Amino acid sequence: MPDLAYVNGEIMPIEKAVVPIEDRGYQFGDGVYEFVASYEGRPFMLEAHLDRLERSMRELAFDPISRADIRHAVLDLFDRGGYPRAGVYIQISRGVAPRNHAFSPGMTPQIIMTIRPVKEMPAEKRKTGATAITVTDTRWGRCDIKTVQLMSNSLAKQKSLDAGCDDAIFVSDQGVVREGTSSNLFIVSGGRLTTHPLTDNILPGITRMVVLKLCKAAQLDVEESFFGRDALLGADEVFLTGTVTELLPVVRIDDQSIGRGEVGPITRRLYDHLRKQAMG
Amino acid sequence: MPDLAYVNGEIMPIEKAVVPIEDRGYQFGDGVYEFVASYEGRPFMLEAHLDRLERSMRELAFDPISRADIRHAVLDLFDRGGYPRAGVYIQISRGVAPRNHAFSPGMTPQIIMTIRPVKEMPAEKRKTGATAITVTDTRWGRCDIKTVQLMSNSLAKQKSLDAGCDDAIFVSDQGVVREGTSSNLFIVSGGRLTTHPLTDNILPGITRMVVLKLCKAAQLDVEESFFGRDALLGADEVFLTGTVTELLPVVRIDDQSIGRGEVGPITRRLYDHLRKQAMG
Repeated sequence: MPDLAYVNGEIMPIEKAVVPIEDRGYQFGDGVYEFVASYEGRPFMLEAHLDRLERSMRELAFDPISRADIRHAVLDLFDRGGYPRAGVYIQISRGVAPRNHAFSPGMTPQIIMTIRPVKEMPAEKRKTGATAITVTDTRWGRCDIKTVQLMSNSLAKQKSLDAGCDDAIFVSDQGVVREGTSSNLFIVSGGRLTTHPLTDNILPGITRMVVLKLCKAAQLDVEESFFGRDALLGADEVFLTGTVTELLPVVRIDDQSIGRGEVGPITRRLYDHLRKQAMG
Repeated sequence: MPDLAYVNGEIMPIEKAVVPIEDRGYQFGDGVYEFVASYEGRPFMLEAHLDRLERSMRELAFDPISRADIRHAVLDLFDRGGYPRAGVYIQISRGVAPRNHAFSPGMTPQIIMTIRPVKEMPAEKRKTGATAITVTDTRWGRCDIKTVQLMSNSLAKQKSLDAGCDDAIFVSDQGVVREGTSSNLFIVSGGRLTTHPLTDNILPGITRMVVLKLCKAAQLDVEESFFGRDALLGADEVFLTGTVTELLPVVRIDDQSIGRGEVGPITRRLYDHLRKQAMG
């Protein structure tokens, strides 16, 4: 079975799926997206992803699309894919019109989706931990909206790979540690967890939200507050959270060991809780 | 004659021109562009646009494309269009690959172009002057590269129209006046011109460069230095520069008159010089 695409209601092989060159997603990055993953054939946190997708569209004043239609198309793709662990990528752009910065009247939002097996993180990384570099955050000012304005994310990710690491961590020019290139970030210090509060500068991650709840259920001390690079490098444990990332330990940042340079007990415990919840 | 598109070497009507959904221009805004306009059938400053396009690709580590091929395609489109005053939009994306933040090996840059008559600024605006609002600059940190990371530009332009104005002027959160949504900005105070220096935060505009040379040729006092919103609102004259904008007077900003609220003598004089140079 080839991996499939959905384009405004039609299903086709991904290689055949196209959009007009004057789709504003292409010429202005004027599009929003979500990535939903399944465990044992069941999409995880689908409604939370649809909530966020609707919020993204609302914040950018896209014309609305039926949530029921999107949900139906996503579930249909998971069914057709038939993979136990798959990812559906959903992208919605404002519409198609002759190039013009302002919104042209009467545009219809365009929806594309793809389904593929999830490219899992190597099991080894989960055991021994990942490495990262820090980079100055040069992203635009509304990273709380999940748009395709992803040039900085892409450049930072590539830079981390070129440096022999797994990911990059954005730090504001005032020194505040924000998040990874496609994940949120938590630190653990003296048994207490901290993650960046929800502002315009980070994504309101769904796995982040799940992990916050898991912390509370496990009576772990957790707070959403700002912290700097020193707190990051001096933490006992650091981990990233995201739909594909799940909960990934980071044991080395900017060539410095985090804690003992191995996966810590709180990270391991929360990962187990997360997997249990995801596997239902 | 329908307006035409060029897609990786093929010519077709714009409505038929498509790109794969996994073109990185669509999913990451990972593309750069130029817009070249002609006067009396002759493209203006074509080599300067090709210089900037090459620089944009280099800064983002795109695989190179033959400059001669791009030039040939642009000139061919101007010929086919046959309009005395036309605009060729050129967009190059990094390539097509299954979605992944990092660069996939072996990608080939994709080129699309369109040709259309230039949508001229209404003559009335040039006579009576345009109006603008100021907005906080929420763009990404490399506005010196002409990419399709244009969400902030698009939102700001729309906001200015919704406010009954013609354009928006980006001001940094430290209060530095930067440029318009698709143009650079000059102020005139006491006979002296000032424009934002070339940094990561503004586009190295080609018309900006031409106007700087025209100022020098006319022995006008001009400097590239930072200035704030007070200097902007207190200026005798303000104008925007760009390929389509040409040199556009702004006579009202945030509901305050600039100078006497009419097109000033230096703006008018420089516009005449620019037109003369463009008409060759």
